[in-house]
Amino acid sequence: MGHPAAAIIAAFLRRTDNKIMPTEVPAIIRNRMAAATQNKPRVLPPSVAHALAQAYDIAVPTQELATSADEAVAIQAKIVGPVALKIVSDDILHKTDAGGVVTNVADADAMRKAYADIMASAQAYKADADISGVLVQEQIPAGQELIIGATSDPVFGKLVAFGLGGTMVEVLKDVTFRLAPTTARIAQDMLAEIKGSAILDGVRGSEPVDRQAIANLIVNVSRLINDFPDIEEIDLNPVIVSGASIAAVDVRILMNYEPAPARPRPSHEAILASMQRIMKPRAVAVVGASAEDGKIGNSVMKNLINGGYGGDLHPVHPKAAEILDRKCYASVKDIPGDVDIAIFCIPAAFVANVIRECGEKGIAGAILIPSGFAEIGEHELQAEIVQAAQAAGVRLMGPNIYGFYYTHHDLCATFCTPYNEKGVVALSSQSGGVGMAIVGFSRSANLGVSAIVGLGNKADIDEDDLLTYFEQDDNTQVIAMHVEDLKDGRAFAEVASRVSKKKPVIVLKAGRTQLGARAASSHTGALAGDHRVYASVLHEAGVIRVEKLNDMLEFARGLAVLPTPQGENVLILTGAGGSGVLLSDACVDNGLNLMPMPDDLDAAFREYIPPFGAAGNPVDITGGEPPSTYEATITLALNESRIHSLILGYWHTIITPPMVFAELLGNCVETARAQGIDKPVVCSLVGDVEIEEACDYLNERNILAYPYTAETPVAVLGAKYQWARTAGLLN
Amino acid sequence: MGHPAAAIIAAFLRRTDNKIMPTEVPAIIRNRMAAATQNKPRVLPPSVAHALAQAYDIAVPTQELATSADEAVAIQAKIVGPVALKIVSDDILHKTDAGGVVTNVADADAMRKAYADIMASAQAYKADADISGVLVQEQIPAGQELIIGATSDPVFGKLVAFGLGGTMVEVLKDVTFRLAPTTARIAQDMLAEIKGSAILDGVRGSEPVDRQAIANLIVNVSRLINDFPDIEEIDLNPVIVSGASIAAVDVRILMNYEPAPARPRPSHEAILASMQRIMKPRAVAVVGASAEDGKIGNSVMKNLINGGYGGDLHPVHPKAAEILDRKCYASVKDIPGDVDIAIFCIPAAFVANVIRECGEKGIAGAILIPSGFAEIGEHELQAEIVQAAQAAGVRLMGPNIYGFYYTHHDLCATFCTPYNEKGVVALSSQSGGVGMAIVGFSRSANLGVSAIVGLGNKADIDEDDLLTYFEQDDNTQVIAMHVEDLKDGRAFAEVASRVSKKKPVIVLKAGRTQLGARAASSHTGALAGDHRVYASVLHEAGVIRVEKLNDMLEFARGLAVLPTPQGENVLILTGAGGSGVLLSDACVDNGLNLMPMPDDLDAAFREYIPPFGAAGNPVDITGGEPPSTYEATITLALNESRIHSLILGYWHTIITPPMVFAELLGNCVETARAQGIDKPVVCSLVGDVEIEEACDYLNERNILAYPYTAETPVAVLGAKYQWARTAGLLN
Repeated sequence: MGHPAAAIIAAFLRRTDNKIMPTEVPAIIRNRMAAATQNKPRVLPPSVAHALAQAYDIAVPTQELATSADEAVAIQAKIVGPVALKIVSDDILHKTDAGGVVTNVADADAMRKAYADIMASAQAYKADADISGVLVQEQIPAGQELIIGATSDPVFGKLVAFGLGGTMVEVLKDVTFRLAPTTARIAQDMLAEIKGSAILDGVRGSEPVDRQAIANLIVNVSRLINDFPDIEEIDLNPVIVSGASIAAVDVRILMNYEPAPARPRPSHEAILASMQRIMKPRAVAVVGASAEDGKIGNSVMKNLINGGYGGDLHPVHPKAAEILDRKCYASVKDIPGDVDIAIFCIPAAFVANVIRECGEKGIAGAILIPSGFAEIGEHELQAEIVQAAQAAGVRLMGPNIYGFYYTHHDLCATFCTPYNEKGVVALSSQSGGVGMAIVGFSRSANLGVSAIVGLGNKADIDEDDLLTYFEQDDNTQVIAMHVEDLKDGRAFAEVASRVSKKKPVIVLKAGRTQLGARAASSHTGALAGDHRVYASVLHEAGVIRVEKLNDMLEFARGLAVLPTPQGENVLILTGAGGSGVLLSDACVDNGLNLMPMPDDLDAAFREYIPPFGAAGNPVDITGGEPPSTYEATITLALNESRIHSLILGYWHTIITPPMVFAELLGNCVETARAQGIDKPVVCSLVGDVEIEEACDYLNERNILAYPYTAETPVAVLGAKYQWARTAGLLN
Repeated sequence: MGHPAAAIIAAFLRRTDNKIMPTEVPAIIRNRMAAATQNKPRVLPPSVAHALAQAYDIAVPTQELATSADEAVAIQAKIVGPVALKIVSDDILHKTDAGGVVTNVADADAMRKAYADIMASAQAYKADADISGVLVQEQIPAGQELIIGATSDPVFGKLVAFGLGGTMVEVLKDVTFRLAPTTARIAQDMLAEIKGSAILDGVRGSEPVDRQAIANLIVNVSRLINDFPDIEEIDLNPVIVSGASIAAVDVRILMNYEPAPARPRPSHEAILASMQRIMKPRAVAVVGASAEDGKIGNSVMKNLINGGYGGDLHPVHPKAAEILDRKCYASVKDIPGDVDIAIFCIPAAFVANVIRECGEKGIAGAILIPSGFAEIGEHELQAEIVQAAQAAGVRLMGPNIYGFYYTHHDLCATFCTPYNEKGVVALSSQSGGVGMAIVGFSRSANLGVSAIVGLGNKADIDEDDLLTYFEQDDNTQVIAMHVEDLKDGRAFAEVASRVSKKKPVIVLKAGRTQLGARAASSHTGALAGDHRVYASVLHEAGVIRVEKLNDMLEFARGLAVLPTPQGENVLILTGAGGSGVLLSDACVDNGLNLMPMPDDLDAAFREYIPPFGAAGNPVDITGGEPPSTYEATITLALNESRIHSLILGYWHTIITPPMVFAELLGNCVETARAQGIDKPVVCSLVGDVEIEEACDYLNERNILAYPYTAETPVAVLGAKYQWARTAGLLN
């Protein structure tokens, strides 16, 4: 670590270990970088990369160029342990073939001999080779290979990467990413997240490695790429770790002197000011309103009226005097009084002009239902409306959307079917198809919503704007989003990290199997396929990621109903041993912890069940039991404070028919709730079709129940736990 | 390969490469084994293990014991390449510490020196050590480490194992198993199945390995363990492969002189003779029939009568003269004429005696509804009824079951609800809870079944008996089984391998997350957790393995409806781009091949859709299109012979409402079917609740349609493809 700035920086970095703070890059380093990049080389010269790494406390082998045996011996004297010698010559590419590498040089005598050997071999290999000298390099002891690097992602910006080196990783791509800069705590998560994590604890008798040292190295690399906008990628390949020793054998830094500009983003306050007017408008204009059935401008008017919207509603039409009994205006500018949003039902070509008029009128949001923009390749037209909106100070929703719903304001600003079942779930979708699935599923499952929002092309308003609004919206407790791509992944991750600690954020990332075909010139870049980066960053942001549309919908419904568990102990109580096995499988699959049954509690359950039942968890009350057994054991489980969540596996019998079970369970839960006990209860009902009615009965009473499945109730409970852990509620 | 028998055996093994034939173990090997195992050592002496491996053409380093430097030089002369020397002494456990190992000995001079060094070091280490000599061993060149071994599984018997060696595998447990003996073709599947398979093709510039050589080695190990009943486990750890060279560095063989006896199993003909009488009985006795409502013996009588059973029905009761208008008998022996099955509704204690009477009466099957046997720890009672049944020549179903249904014979031999919707799906369950879920789901989804069978404790009849029957039952085309454990996994695998080539076999293996805590004294044995062995062998047997109850039910329904595809080309046709993305994700997840769109076909689709739609696969007809566009494009896809399966993503619009879509699709498919075109069509419908009615309409017409999900229709199609490939119908 020979560089003069290294000690200062190292101290600084250690000081800010668990908190991200801007790094003060010393002038000496800035100057050296400036000199080295004057001619804009794609690859930073290795000596500069080496010095830069040292300045960031990234251990690299100490090395120096020797031009004589005496110099080599002098350099060797500064290095502890054996050294390696490598010929340096632009004329000799394959050093080993030329006899240009000697390792394990231990003392001065050996050094003089090795130096002479190398020079002789080089001359023999290529007599006229132009030889710069011999690199004398500290030899890194053998150990576990790691890959640590950094890359610049078009969606998420600067990222740091971590994985295990070696052939298995090149095949399995066992690598994970985080936003740069990162903290030591987050870096530790990366170490735990990779599939081969256990290798770090030592296998086959090898010593465990120093996880903190690896985490610090990750932090340092993340700071390095973050501090220099022009650094595009960093490869430390490999890093070798062995016990507490860690070093990067090679440092390669790729430059890009024209990084993509950041997406413009309003301030938090500005987002909220606009979004509040958009979601709860006092006055709405419908541009392109129509009296003609089947027209979008007619459907929007009807949905607003039939949905019960209570604010002022102003149709805008060039000629009509009245539409659906409302006075018409030729332009938004003619409307008297303030207007908050304008819903556009006009062809794409006319949109930009009306946006400018909206700006003059002081309208906060333009809801752009029209299609005909980027989604069909009309990128210029889309750029034009974005520019117009920015100039006019109007936020855009869409274009190419079905509109949006905000039920607590009785607002159905959409041409689709109206929906006004009030609840605490806010959903958004990028696609209209998914939006209609949300409406249909919600109606079918009696899922109350606070909002359903179409985002379409996301020319302006996107998921982070919505998250910023829903975060402070008391009507919203659960957020579910269908996402095809993020326009500004970094902004999303930042906002989602904050919001997910308060309210569950469920994300269905569509297109996850489409590998980002990326032209990568670094190893780290090549590993950064879209799906791996999305998976890593969404995980970092604490969102609940789902892979299926139906999971998104079921989780949204379920998470709104389930209370937050007070601890990790889950109990399965079942009338069918077979269900108990399937429910146990599902618990493992969904990261739930089956409570080890304490003896006294086991004895308490045994009081109510046949001698051959029970024993441990699942509690198997056996199939032939009357309602009183269900009642007694459920009540015991609800009242027992060591049990934090309850999974019920009901089996249809003549002795305890489905509706009898449903009613007794409803009573047990109601009694407990009245006593202030409200723990998560989910039910799997198996049996003949009568169980469907029993499920309906239970769901109406906010007790989650599902027929013909052992897995769905457990998956929903698992999602609630995942969130509770993210939000730090189970520590 | 110094052993005299090796060449003969090697030739023999090569001759039978792709067909399993009994190995003729030469007498000389048999004799050596007999001598070595006379005192029943747990671990076979290394020299015998070594010779045995060589006899089975398993390459091991050539090695011989030298007791003098001259001998060592003579041995060296027989070995090509460098050799390693290792001290052999019972008094020196840590050879390396004692200076007792020298590697890379290249010539006679070096050998003499090395021999002297080793002897000197050994003496210095322990002066009075009893030294047997020095092992002169061929040195195996470096390469990729593999783990190849064999183990004896309590469920599946002798198994061969394959995995990649090295630390990653020890952590990731990337290993797979097959029944021993195996074939080279199956061994090749093992190579392809492991996660790190690509490593075998060479990474980071290393040469690909000889897959055939590895496969042959796997075959040889599988034969070795199979030929000797007393061999319990074999570890070749590691095997080193490099290009075409392959060798096991070490061979370790564990013995067990009291292997578990095989489960008795009737002949194929005997199984069929009994099962045919059981599933289609001409006369049924109900032992413990009752006139009293709520009694099991009453429910069974009623279900048989109300289910429309057309054969003779004989209640058996010690005192009653008539039950439900049927003449009663005091014993099954008193019933006039032949009786095929007796359904037991009596307490456990009385079962054994009545089984004996059934034997005297010539009854084929005893359906044992009673519980109170092994499931509550009454293993002796269960052993007694098994013994009684074997002596009496009666097959047992159960005990501890709900009974069974065979609809095509109008037989509801159960105390649960009757079900008589005829169809081609046969289902079985080990648990009553799952059995009732099958009945309920079937009724709810209008799923016709051929049989539903409860297997309970499986004291006798188990899944392979059922498979043997359903294989030849023309009423059954799809088989779905809920399995908690297999009583004879080998028999199941053998029968399932055969049946799955004719009819899809779906298996829900419950309890898959309960790791088999197995006391293993070999490396291979330690890797053989229950779940990995089940997964491997079920895969080998060609079954469609599902992890969720609901998947088992949906797949059973869907596979019965879908025709077999004629090829791998799948097309997605959608009105919603967003659905297209989700459906594409699901195709990748479920192993479906999206057809690359030929230019001419792309042009043909473009004729019908807006200029900004289509392009490739998915075909996106866009959301605003009228019914005629759906009609034209669906018809084009159905008639196009290069398209083998069609996934439709419908999006609810006012222009093409759900029922309009359903009817037009129904017409298109009906027209195609009338023309002899019957390719798989699955539909995902997203939209408002009207899509549920549209799905019902389509499902009634045998067109699979699902609301609010993109994934389920694709998963069902994926299962059909998985089966078609297993059955060799897509080659």
